[in-house]
Amino acid sequence: MVFNQQKKDALNNLCASERLQDVDENLKPLLTLINKKKDYYTTSSCSGRITLLEDRGGKGDDKIQAKWHKKVTLDELLHELKKCGGKIWFKYECPIIHVVARDADKASKLLVIAHEAGFKRAGIHSIKKERVLLEILSTERIELPVTEDGQILVDSEHLSRIVAEANRKYEVGLWKLEKLAEKISRLN
Amino acid sequence: MVFNQQKKDALNNLCASERLQDVDENLKPLLTLINKKKDYYTTSSCSGRITLLEDRGGKGDDKIQAKWHKKVTLDELLHELKKCGGKIWFKYECPIIHVVARDADKASKLLVIAHEAGFKRAGIHSIKKERVLLEILSTERIELPVTEDGQILVDSEHLSRIVAEANRKYEVGLWKLEKLAEKISRLN
Repeated sequence: MVFNQQKKDALNNLCASERLQDVDENLKPLLTLINKKKDYYTTSSCSGRITLLEDRGGKGDDKIQAKWHKKVTLDELLHELKKCGGKIWFKYECPIIHVVARDADKASKLLVIAHEAGFKRAGIHSIKKERVLLEILSTERIELPVTEDGQILVDSEHLSRIVAEANRKYEVGLWKLEKLAEKISRLN
Repeated sequence: MVFNQQKKDALNNLCASERLQDVDENLKPLLTLINKKKDYYTTSSCSGRITLLEDRGGKGDDKIQAKWHKKVTLDELLHELKKCGGKIWFKYECPIIHVVARDADKASKLLVIAHEAGFKRAGIHSIKKERVLLEILSTERIELPVTEDGQILVDSEHLSRIVAEANRKYEVGLWKLEKLAEKISRLN
């Protein structure tokens, strides 16, 4: 009963986020699919993202200066990068899906499917009496410092290559999400 | 009983690897500590690593061309990099510890401790009748392409910065491992 109430609350939150256009379009079909299954519901998730992150070197939290849940162009990146001071890291991070399961058995069942779909780092993040939380993610990453004191450290040719690699990995992420959706649709 | 036999086999394997000097020195105290606990044993683990990885673009598996389980110097890196052809990625990957727990409850207990020690991506990787496997890892990463067709794409100054960042992250990894060891030593 606790699970059912939590799921209702989570779906209400998701609806509110959708109204605010705060849900990643590429993820909607998968989230809908998971939430239709009686033993699961989703919480915060992302289809993969490219970010420019300010590294504050321990002085407070690192700060996201620009964020895209889509492929980017070199121009878009440079436009944002030129506005940034300090020390900036370029990051591509793979999709991450958080799913609450009714119990550890149901979590385990979804975990097997997630690994099969290529989400090598999928795991049960916590088992508590009130909820079992799965974190589904993979290994694709790009992460490097690109500015120091506001000066761009990487020439345009290399930056263009980094952008192309990030976009390619973003596509791999979407492909894995599709594979996961396909497998979940066949789950009883 | 199955767990006890598996643990005995795993400890024999670890002992054999130690004799072959195939166990990461920085990890030995933590592995010993975990293996002394009756409800856990370790399998393949790593204290963090810096690698040069050949990207074969889908033609077979990517191939490790050089690997260090320690901090590196720019000279060491360049020495190996100059030997590589093709497309090479520089990677720093955070520590990863695999632990088998007697049951899901014991796994869950260790998971809480791992998160507290800063291993944000720690999770239960699989729950099977014969074993429950935990994967303990964190989020620190560096990952970027550094050569294409054997040509180095990044100037020495930037490469030197990348090496310094990787070494700093390697230190963070060791610090988290110490924190984890301290917490595990207090575990009943």
